Amino acid sequence: MLKKHNFGAGPCILPPSVMEQAAQAVINWRGMGLSILEVSHRSPEFEDVVLKTQLLVRDLLSVPDHYSVMFLQGGASTQFAMVPMNFLGAEKKAAYLDTGYFAQKAIKEAKLFGKVDVIASSKDKDYAYIPGSFNHDKQSAYLHCTSNNTIEGTEMFDFPKESVPLICDMSSDIFSREINITDFDLIYAGAQKNMGPAGMTLVIAKNEFINLAKKEIPSMMDYRIFRDNMSMYNTPPVFSIYVAMLNLLWLKDQGGVSGIAQKNIAKAKLLYAEIDRNPLFYGTADVGHRSRMNITFLAINKEVEVGFLKFAAEQGIVGIKGYRTVGGFRASLYNALPISSVEVLVNAMSSFEKMYSEKTVLELE
Amino acid sequence: MLKKHNFGAGPCILPPSVMEQAAQAVINWRGMGLSILEVSHRSPEFEDVVLKTQLLVRDLLSVPDHYSVMFLQGGASTQFAMVPMNFLGAEKKAAYLDTGYFAQKAIKEAKLFGKVDVIASSKDKDYAYIPGSFNHDKQSAYLHCTSNNTIEGTEMFDFPKESVPLICDMSSDIFSREINITDFDLIYAGAQKNMGPAGMTLVIAKNEFINLAKKEIPSMMDYRIFRDNMSMYNTPPVFSIYVAMLNLLWLKDQGGVSGIAQKNIAKAKLLYAEIDRNPLFYGTADVGHRSRMNITFLAINKEVEVGFLKFAAEQGIVGIKGYRTVGGFRASLYNALPISSVEVLVNAMSSFEKMYSEKTVLELE
Repeated sequence: MLKKHNFGAGPCILPPSVMEQAAQAVINWRGMGLSILEVSHRSPEFEDVVLKTQLLVRDLLSVPDHYSVMFLQGGASTQFAMVPMNFLGAEKKAAYLDTGYFAQKAIKEAKLFGKVDVIASSKDKDYAYIPGSFNHDKQSAYLHCTSNNTIEGTEMFDFPKESVPLICDMSSDIFSREINITDFDLIYAGAQKNMGPAGMTLVIAKNEFINLAKKEIPSMMDYRIFRDNMSMYNTPPVFSIYVAMLNLLWLKDQGGVSGIAQKNIAKAKLLYAEIDRNPLFYGTADVGHRSRMNITFLAINKEVEVGFLKFAAEQGIVGIKGYRTVGGFRASLYNALPISSVEVLVNAMSSFEKMYSEKTVLELE
Repeated sequence: MLKKHNFGAGPCILPPSVMEQAAQAVINWRGMGLSILEVSHRSPEFEDVVLKTQLLVRDLLSVPDHYSVMFLQGGASTQFAMVPMNFLGAEKKAAYLDTGYFAQKAIKEAKLFGKVDVIASSKDKDYAYIPGSFNHDKQSAYLHCTSNNTIEGTEMFDFPKESVPLICDMSSDIFSREINITDFDLIYAGAQKNMGPAGMTLVIAKNEFINLAKKEIPSMMDYRIFRDNMSMYNTPPVFSIYVAMLNLLWLKDQGGVSGIAQKNIAKAKLLYAEIDRNPLFYGTADVGHRSRMNITFLAINKEVEVGFLKFAAEQGIVGIKGYRTVGGFRASLYNALPISSVEVLVNAMSSFEKMYSEKTVLELE
């Protein structure tokens, strides 16, 4: 069978060794004679998985002791509402950076709970950059940002150093590069990119910050409940957490976050170089704000767009169709994507260029 | 290896054929050369899974067209808050039946949103029965009940025929017996019993009822958002939905809900007969309200309790330790548990009785 190169934006590629271990656990986990799908979440074996996954997150991201690591459900979309439900009230306001589609969704949900100051936006240039400077009221309950804009293909490399609590949606670049956890008061991320399969959400939060949360909120929306119950207030997404553990163990074997970051930089460099070189394609994001995870680019015309999508599919390249609002192509280079797959894509782009110019010559004759 | 008989209360046993298909899909799904864990939720192949799972739910439970079938995350615990967030307000009140631990959790969350009338409770007898009669204000926004009390081992066989919308938590007995969907305005169920693995929640709701929901609620707590986006407003729990589809296909092969209900009745009858016959054990629930899914029973003394738990484990019997508030034993007889496993348990109980009486005789000599 044709080998597939999965550039999908999420749920995304995970390492083959993780898939194999996960499949084995579905049949017979730890030789217990039970599937991971039928094991009690209160069993000592699964409690060990939750603890180990927490410790791996702490280790890989250097999470200090005064921060909690929690596993929730509902993805970043639930966090868009859970953050303001905990920290914003009718009498308060929060500052938001508008850097794209998902930042806007976060803003929309926050407005249900209190006043929202959109302190900067890159909407004027179709979100092709990250706003560089902005002011906000020092009385804001928090400042919310999105570290990587999955759809628009931009990434923040500098984070605001402000006097208010900083909250960041890191859904699509967490574990892809080194970050300084203490720059943030709360980080959240849907797992289905670099952490594991869909169905769980990671939250890392400073304890003294989540202690400020409102008192009268639903248990399943209360960070303190997840913290105080080791993410097991109710039945957690057992399989997703288990596969995340396997994937984080794999990441540790890759030299951890600093090791994978070097590989991610090399992969992104390779593809951006081809985009910049190849006359048939051009990037959409401003050069200084280009994402290393989600690389968005357009074709010079519709014929190239349609033709290349077909040609790429014939090479086993999957998931490069751009999001409908941006169009063109999006190649997601998550941790588990090998550089050999990026080479296949780059070669396909240059082969297509050759074919296209020959065809054009042919048509001119 | 010793064959395991999994009586766990959830996440629980699923059919071996489902585990095998799920494991295969983790390696290579539909021969696509991709794992089910790395497939886009927007791919036509996965959209087909969501649609097929919806249709299976409709088929198996005879869900009429004016009801919607939705897949959410967060389990019943999230529904405890989502129901009142949608339908209860400070100026309204809702009626709740207090039939046990999870009913109480639902009541606690509802109180955050409006006035709660607990119209009947079986707390006076440690929740060993389902209250038979009750009155409630006809102005209530809804009446909430729990069809099966997983911890206390009771089950409702008659549902209130009232003039207000009826909402039911069916987490632990949905798909185990025939129900009349039109008796209810909204049904919810954590999937990790008879539907699939942990990580998804089923909601079946009458469209005209969910249209009454409050307007200004978070998107991820709004039933209309899930209905109008085919449960794909954001990334759904892909693998859990896929395995649920496999499991519901299996259920259809078993003769559907009416077919499995006959088997469930036979399994429960067999175990209750042994509990009633064996002088070492006794049931905790009132006979008329005994659950067919979660069978709770106690030992006559601590020695029998500890000894039988050890003896049962030696026979490969897993997950029969009772919940801490009830103690003793709980054997969950979910759909996928074969009657042969119940026979193993019943035989273990009678063998233990024999051993125990011989030992007692020995000690007396």
